[in-house]
Amino acid sequence: MSSEITYEVTEGVATITLNRPKRLNAFTAVMAGELVEAFDRADADDDVRVVIVTGAGRGFCAGADLSGGGDTFNHEDGVDEARARFGEVDGVPRDGGGTVSLRIAASRKVVIGAINGPAVGVGVTMTLPMDIRIAAGSARFGFVFARRGIIPEAASTWFLPRVVGISQAMEWVSTGRVFDAAEALRGKLVSRVVPDADLLPTATALAREIADNTSSVSVAVARQLLWGMLGSPTPWEAHSLDSRTMFELGAGKDAAEGVTSFLEKRPADFPAKVSADYPAFLPEFPAKPQKQA
Amino acid sequence: MSSEITYEVTEGVATITLNRPKRLNAFTAVMAGELVEAFDRADADDDVRVVIVTGAGRGFCAGADLSGGGDTFNHEDGVDEARARFGEVDGVPRDGGGTVSLRIAASRKVVIGAINGPAVGVGVTMTLPMDIRIAAGSARFGFVFARRGIIPEAASTWFLPRVVGISQAMEWVSTGRVFDAAEALRGKLVSRVVPDADLLPTATALAREIADNTSSVSVAVARQLLWGMLGSPTPWEAHSLDSRTMFELGAGKDAAEGVTSFLEKRPADFPAKVSADYPAFLPEFPAKPQKQA
Amino acid sequence: MSSEITYEVTEGVATITLNRPKRLNAFTAVMAGELVEAFDRADADDDVRVVIVTGAGRGFCAGADLSGGGDTFNHEDGVDEARARFGEVDGVPRDGGGTVSLRIAASRKVVIGAINGPAVGVGVTMTLPMDIRIAAGSARFGFVFARRGIIPEAASTWFLPRVVGISQAMEWVSTGRVFDAAEALRGKLVSRVVPDADLLPTATALAREIADNTSSVSVAVARQLLWGMLGSPTPWEAHSLDSRTMFELGAGKDAAEGVTSFLEKRPADFPAKVSADYPAFLPEFPAKPQKQA
Repeated sequence: MSSEITYEVTEGVATITLNRPKRLNAFTAVMAGELVEAFDRADADDDVRVVIVTGAGRGFCAGADLSGGGDTFNHEDGVDEARARFGEVDGVPRDGGGTVSLRIAASRKVVIGAINGPAVGVGVTMTLPMDIRIAAGSARFGFVFARRGIIPEAASTWFLPRVVGISQAMEWVSTGRVFDAAEALRGKLVSRVVPDADLLPTATALAREIADNTSSVSVAVARQLLWGMLGSPTPWEAHSLDSRTMFELGAGKDAAEGVTSFLEKRPADFPAKVSADYPAFLPEFPAKPQKQA
Repeated sequence: MSSEITYEVTEGVATITLNRPKRLNAFTAVMAGELVEAFDRADADDDVRVVIVTGAGRGFCAGADLSGGGDTFNHEDGVDEARARFGEVDGVPRDGGGTVSLRIAASRKVVIGAINGPAVGVGVTMTLPMDIRIAAGSARFGFVFARRGIIPEAASTWFLPRVVGISQAMEWVSTGRVFDAAEALRGKLVSRVVPDADLLPTATALAREIADNTSSVSVAVARQLLWGMLGSPTPWEAHSLDSRTMFELGAGKDAAEGVTSFLEKRPADFPAKVSADYPAFLPEFPAKPQKQA
Repeated sequence: MSSEITYEVTEGVATITLNRPKRLNAFTAVMAGELVEAFDRADADDDVRVVIVTGAGRGFCAGADLSGGGDTFNHEDGVDEARARFGEVDGVPRDGGGTVSLRIAASRKVVIGAINGPAVGVGVTMTLPMDIRIAAGSARFGFVFARRGIIPEAASTWFLPRVVGISQAMEWVSTGRVFDAAEALRGKLVSRVVPDADLLPTATALAREIADNTSSVSVAVARQLLWGMLGSPTPWEAHSLDSRTMFELGAGKDAAEGVTSFLEKRPADFPAKVSADYPAFLPEFPAKPQKQA
């Protein structure tokens, strides 16, 4: 059972709610672990097609919980504890935000961020590996790291320039400014801004558009390939992988149903399941560098 | 002679027209082969400076021809035939859309997509390696693969996030929705939308702007370098290649004419030809991964 | 002392002004060398937080000085001289624009381009490794290389598609057209356009927002990571580097001050210095390919 998030599934859509509303859902190590578990659960459940992430109360996530004061980010005296919490990478304790971001990146379900109120620090960097971000009018964003003497974490130095472009990324990161939903929309951090009351209905409608019309295996494969091919130097690797995947899925149950239902002008009822039918030969994204193997 | 496309050259501009208007120019293996040949022909002809691709009749390309029904994408019983058609990659039959996309990517001439009516499935993915896409008001787009139980092919998992960004790519691919020209413009899939009657005149004017003012060798080299450097981890490789190319082209006929004509305030008449003067040391794009050599 | 640029520091902001106003600040080998020196100087001076680059008089930089006529780019008879000027790369003389671009890319201070009047050829490509570009209404841009029989240099084949996207890059490069500030804004080459009289005040206000609110070490590290991770195939390398950097900086002086000042609702006074406190283990951007080592 989770203590700092909630997880609910309704008609194929899992909603993960960051749930420390008195602290504007400030991020903790406990929350990080629960988020990783929630994405594991969504991936293992074939009935879940889409994951929505939102915040309870007046905010999405105000960033790291700073109740530790000036030593919040100082783990020198607690290095073993920090290491125990999230494991290590290249000999240092893994950054907690990064464990969440890399887990979201690996999701086999589409992830929609529904951002209400403040999304600051790790509150915004955790949304970057999500596929779609929509904002309430009340949303506020800030890559405030340089104002706290630290750096953008959660692997956001990789994700942010790919989501908004390097120039916009550098302006937000170097100023550390807090900005509103309109600026986020202009800078393509979110794809749309809606009144607060419409935020979850809009996210849910988008999730339904996916869940009601598409093959779960097709979407899972496409998600891995689109994100994965961001790291590929030429389109040949994509051509090789999509040739093999088209050959395999093209002979599968969902392709037969997808084409037949289209020709018969009726809704498709796709039988394939991610748990059973995801092609085993496809590489995992995000791939670990070999030196970390 | 082609049967499913037409190919015409007028004043330095080759126009390739997908030509199965009764089927909304639905894509076939024959069409794929003819497209590859047409791009070979354009590259071999120094009089061709720009290639425009458009569709005959009411559409651009409605996607794969689904007249084979539920087995359209099932090549298990015809694997030798599929292999014979486009060759193989990593041991499986090559995806037909990918043979077209990779050929367009390798073009030494600028390619403009002039999109009229539906461009769906391979009808839109084949346009992604084109340099510029403009749309008629009647254009409709759809990355509908997940609605058919298959995946985005034609190496589009590599091209699409580079053209429109990963978030927009994921929204279009995961919903599989069909969308209009205005949404395509907002999402930067096309650079402009014009009334249907203005589509070919607009594409032609853009082609003329290129053909009338620039060195064919300069444009061919720039096209290869810009697309090719998308896969390079640092700007050093670009610096190395552009230093060497500037040294070679800077001593060439077109640089002398380009600077002299500019100083004399007259139109340039560039003498160099792609067939004879393209620098031999430049790498080909898209480079095949070594394991596929 | 510089002869073709000026360099001034005011309250933490260095302003580099291209200073050949009678020639619209046309680019020369002397100017290139002085620019490299100016960025060395800014990086070595802990009191400099941000660098603004602008042009004296009516223009930013009209491109290469073409007073050499048709042989301007021909170094075949002066290859030793060309080699002596900027060194060599892969056996050929290094392109002068590239020495400037790569130096700007390596900057540990944020770089803002404040573009007044014409920025053409190397006058615009040199701005691409800058973090933020803002334009005066009078600004004019042109990737005119193909109209001169040469190619986009200064490693711009790497930078340009990352700044504006491959499709916009190909349209500007293949036409070689000169375009105005509004087109530059639509194409995301600049982040904003202001009246000419507001150009330097706007750039300075942005520089102040950075200098007054952020840790210099945080910004220097973030700049290297954001640009550097553009070349990394997966977010794992970012996760590894940011975990280690968060561990180190999190235990440092600026993190203590950043969090404490935030909790105390007062401006931060960050004590760390780039010269002393920049983490030594971080890789340099742009990394040289190994074959060039």
